[in-house]
Amino acid sequence: MQHCDTLILAGWCIPVEPHGIVLDDHAVAITDGRIVDLLPAADARSLYAAGTTIERPGHALIPGFVNAHTHAAMTLLRGLADDLPLERWLKESIWPAENRWVGTEFVRDGTRLAIAEMLLSGCTCFSDQYFYPEIVAETAENMHMRAVVATPVLEFASPWANNAAEYLSKGTELVHDRFAEHALISSAFAPHSTGTVSDESFTALRVLADQLDKPIQLHLHESAQEIEDALAATGERPIDRLERLGLINSSLLAVHAVHLTDEEISRFAAAGVQVVHCPNSNLKLADGVAKVAQMQANGIVVALGTDGAASNNLLNMPGEMRSAALLAKTKANDATAMPAASALRMATFDGASALGLADQVGSLQSGKWADLCAIDLTRLNSQPVYDPISQLVYAIHANQVRDVWVAGRHQVENGELSQTSEADIVRRSSEWRDRINAKLTQEA
Amino acid sequence: MQHCDTLILAGWCIPVEPHGIVLDDHAVAITDGRIVDLLPAADARSLYAAGTTIERPGHALIPGFVNAHTHAAMTLLRGLADDLPLERWLKESIWPAENRWVGTEFVRDGTRLAIAEMLLSGCTCFSDQYFYPEIVAETAENMHMRAVVATPVLEFASPWANNAAEYLSKGTELVHDRFAEHALISSAFAPHSTGTVSDESFTALRVLADQLDKPIQLHLHESAQEIEDALAATGERPIDRLERLGLINSSLLAVHAVHLTDEEISRFAAAGVQVVHCPNSNLKLADGVAKVAQMQANGIVVALGTDGAASNNLLNMPGEMRSAALLAKTKANDATAMPAASALRMATFDGASALGLADQVGSLQSGKWADLCAIDLTRLNSQPVYDPISQLVYAIHANQVRDVWVAGRHQVENGELSQTSEADIVRRSSEWRDRINAKLTQEA
Repeated sequence: MQHCDTLILAGWCIPVEPHGIVLDDHAVAITDGRIVDLLPAADARSLYAAGTTIERPGHALIPGFVNAHTHAAMTLLRGLADDLPLERWLKESIWPAENRWVGTEFVRDGTRLAIAEMLLSGCTCFSDQYFYPEIVAETAENMHMRAVVATPVLEFASPWANNAAEYLSKGTELVHDRFAEHALISSAFAPHSTGTVSDESFTALRVLADQLDKPIQLHLHESAQEIEDALAATGERPIDRLERLGLINSSLLAVHAVHLTDEEISRFAAAGVQVVHCPNSNLKLADGVAKVAQMQANGIVVALGTDGAASNNLLNMPGEMRSAALLAKTKANDATAMPAASALRMATFDGASALGLADQVGSLQSGKWADLCAIDLTRLNSQPVYDPISQLVYAIHANQVRDVWVAGRHQVENGELSQTSEADIVRRSSEWRDRINAKLTQEA
Repeated sequence: MQHCDTLILAGWCIPVEPHGIVLDDHAVAITDGRIVDLLPAADARSLYAAGTTIERPGHALIPGFVNAHTHAAMTLLRGLADDLPLERWLKESIWPAENRWVGTEFVRDGTRLAIAEMLLSGCTCFSDQYFYPEIVAETAENMHMRAVVATPVLEFASPWANNAAEYLSKGTELVHDRFAEHALISSAFAPHSTGTVSDESFTALRVLADQLDKPIQLHLHESAQEIEDALAATGERPIDRLERLGLINSSLLAVHAVHLTDEEISRFAAAGVQVVHCPNSNLKLADGVAKVAQMQANGIVVALGTDGAASNNLLNMPGEMRSAALLAKTKANDATAMPAASALRMATFDGASALGLADQVGSLQSGKWADLCAIDLTRLNSQPVYDPISQLVYAIHANQVRDVWVAGRHQVENGELSQTSEADIVRRSSEWRDRINAKLTQEA
């Protein structure tokens, strides 16, 4: 008998890579936080002496979801300003609230709330863009959550930095010194958008990101208004401007990319640009629906993200996956577009690829970190099960995520956080609501 | 002190009518299955001596959801044939499976599964179109669920009837004799679509429905293909043909209505036609997105439906409400379209109106049946709560529905069915899956 730390036996194991495969009654063996084997359950029982054995009949065991774009701390602003267009939402509600409230305590509490919500819905890795990225990174580390922490870059002052140079220097410190070579935390740069960053800063950022070998992610072609404003201000579409500045390349993760011409899709494909699709945020802000099937057909890696809870308003990857699959069909005018297995891949392996973590997570393959979730398909709303992948994409609720492991640590057990007090997080969130509401009442 | 059977005290009561109101710390008093009072919790405690008192702090108490269009028994085919276009989905998968399997046992088991799923997600009333409507009605009655049971009408034979005349006569018996004046069950006629019913049968149906004073609901302008096929076959758009046959009037409930011209929207408004919007089914079959905001602006009552689980694949009204609100914004190119309160109204009161039940259910008003649900907003993903209506529409999962009452009977308690065995329903569903799969394997 061989030793392993943990053996998880599930009704179905869905490795994602290879694509579209469902393995009935299989097991994953874990040692030192990594997957060491994927094999039939019967073989696993005879081959492995496990420290801990977990049996999940009727459950699908899959790679944890990868949320490739969010602003975790903004969960504290969830529902504060709904049903507004992007520009008014940002300028009249979100930015003033952020300027008033954002600080270390806000970011820590908001990020804790977000990570807890993501874990409970099966997400094991998120990419974040927000002020105080060092607090985001510390919080993820403390909660044992995998994160790509991106440093914001803006021209204007925020509570965290005064100007683009300071954003860049603070970001460099974080990227270079504090979280280099970390098992759970990696880093990136996140210029907010082409409307809020100058040519000079983009150029400085490009040089710096090249030196440090770090990816750049930014909100790009999210709304028609953004493109119109850019044309009015600079005479260039944002993508053309970035091309001129040398940023359209394989280090770029373009977030949203709702409004791309056919030519721009070809250009992204040729340059190796990756995209993050945020379907529900795009709908809510009336931005439109990205041409995901067309991008994928052109070979672009498209990841999936929730965006922040202030514009979604859930950090619920299973729901986002469902929306992505459904919207892709109507957008492409083709009901066969984005079949269930492709949607599941987008929410896991493609997310890992887009974040540069494809060799680390995103599939049930030996050597990768054991970032996993087990989803209960015995619930009424998932019955009967003809095809487990179809049920995962089209017929589950988030609470059917019963177990989640990050680098082998059992973070969600039977649908509850094992390492974190939910009651404490809810209490802190309510306190923030009371504080923010009191100020709004006082000002009104 | 006055007597009432049940007193429910909730953190928030949201009556829906009047529109957009949130009542903090209020209570609903129930006697003989009907709402008798809605008042502040403190007043309720001093005024009422209740047989049963139920306290739900942190919960929103709302009217139960009205699912205005489904095919309940088709839950047994959930996930059998995904990612196919409407015509192939119907002709190659669904209709052959139905012809092989549909019978009294299939309809009873499928309808039980569907009702259980709907109750658990807060739905207290559904409108159904399926074969063996007498079994649908009996099952709803046995499970104490409110239902509008519509008799299908088709030219071609099914296991239930051989021709249009037989569908009509069987429907008349059901409507006229067996479920007349029932507290929970009402009835309607459901010609399947303009492509499957002749002019002669439509005319006979119109006369019959007038005599019996029953509404007619049918799939109408669901896909572009349906309209093209009709033009090729008859030279008329389906709506024009129905107009000629005298069916475009206030007795008509048009299901889907994805493809309407501006003129057709005006015509529906002028004639008092109601519409059922099924956003996720329409996306999945690549039919498109209905112009809901435009229809509402024209004064058309638009209800919300899940459609059957074979094309959705959930019977989850909270999720459908969220999708409707999000899609309306992008379809109208206006992020202020369908604000949260309008989406909640669509999923409750407007559904009741469209089904002719506005005086019976759909709001928390004295005299109406106590069809209610309590939704827990203390969960992480609904925190913090600035606006309970926003959270209900944008930031809940179905499992936050903790209690459901139909005509005052407590059908879901703490998230579990109180009157029905979930395990039994799951077992029966699995047996159907095994039977259907065995036949598919045998034929392959």
